[in-house]
Amino acid sequence: MPEQITLYTAKICPWAHRAELALKESKLPYTRYEIDLKNKPEWYAPKVNLASKVPAIAYGGPDVEADHPSPESQKIAESGVIIELVADLAKNAELLPSDPILRAKARFFVETVTPAFAGASRGFLTRGEDPEAIFRAVDVIQGLLPAEGYAVGQWSIADAAVLPFFARAEVSFKNDIGAYEEGNGKATWEKLETDPKYARFRKYFNDLKSRDSFKETFYPVSSPY
Amino acid sequence: MPEQITLYTAKICPWAHRAELALKESKLPYTRYEIDLKNKPEWYAPKVNLASKVPAIAYGGPDVEADHPSPESQKIAESGVIIELVADLAKNAELLPSDPILRAKARFFVETVTPAFAGASRGFLTRGEDPEAIFRAVDVIQGLLPAEGYAVGQWSIADAAVLPFFARAEVSFKNDIGAYEEGNGKATWEKLETDPKYARFRKYFNDLKSRDSFKETFYPVSSPY
Repeated sequence: MPEQITLYTAKICPWAHRAELALKESKLPYTRYEIDLKNKPEWYAPKVNLASKVPAIAYGGPDVEADHPSPESQKIAESGVIIELVADLAKNAELLPSDPILRAKARFFVETVTPAFAGASRGFLTRGEDPEAIFRAVDVIQGLLPAEGYAVGQWSIADAAVLPFFARAEVSFKNDIGAYEEGNGKATWEKLETDPKYARFRKYFNDLKSRDSFKETFYPVSSPY
Repeated sequence: MPEQITLYTAKICPWAHRAELALKESKLPYTRYEIDLKNKPEWYAPKVNLASKVPAIAYGGPDVEADHPSPESQKIAESGVIIELVADLAKNAELLPSDPILRAKARFFVETVTPAFAGASRGFLTRGEDPEAIFRAVDVIQGLLPAEGYAVGQWSIADAAVLPFFARAEVSFKNDIGAYEEGNGKATWEKLETDPKYARFRKYFNDLKSRDSFKETFYPVSSPY
């Protein structure tokens, strides 16, 4: 029997969402435990993740309730570390290609797209910064995407790493939630949705959203930014 | 015959040094090409790395001179991506353990120690910030290290990722080079070198420095910070 996996996560958090997407795609069974980030349980930091952040995984150890984590399970934190772990645990699911260069390209995609898109999107949402940075990030994404398919062709953890940021941007922008002038969120999203220049990005985002892994893990919480 | 590897690097750069350490430990043959960061060759950005940073690797393709890179080789940038690539290319060298949890621990070590130590050390060197942050980072490192050996026991790319920052801190602090009050660099390093509290860190750092991979790749350039 495989070792148990418990994922400590939060619907609102894009970093935690990365781990949920990877786990869904892996088909590994796991227990999902929601952490209320505004009112974290007392046992969470000392028993699961000293940094007190989500996501974190408890792996192996005895069969216990998620809110009574055992000191005998391995605790692993950091979303980038967790999605690589899921790929390593579920070798047959091929969540990373076996070719070393394609694996490097998947990792480069994450290293490049995450700061570009999440950074630009956060600057726009929280400080009302110029949305041009978002369009530049989408240019970067389109420059890296192959003609067809996902970040490196077949679905990989690189896609799990970036999708949460696109999905949250869509909800916020469409609902015009952000520290920008009214209408600016909607206008930014509309440009991404209609400008022929962004067709490849749209196709990529829609392909990702149509997968069960996304439908089963995304909760479009109208979050304060 | 294995594919050719060309590493574009710079003696002064800790990020590039990560890649050199991993390549040395891998025993893969490679060509080292020094990029003068203050006077980069014109061909570097368009032909090797659009971001114009080191390290970058050209992998495969025809047999060409390093300063005439071929469009047919694969170009891979970002130090974290490159050290994983080297581990993937040199499976037999076991630059990452095969156990998924140990692999996760190696990656977590990098994700945690790099910002903690490099951040604290940079704050001290460039802005004269309190060196207490460095001692706190060393506490974190000691909390993660096993009783014996390297970051996860056997040598791994996690060690290649952090060593360049320790080595450059030592040179700068010992020579009192930094935006702090005179004597402060020396005093900080002396504490790390003599306080019994830091014995585990010292052992780790000395073990790393005694390896050929370090001796063959470290150039203690007295760098302006």
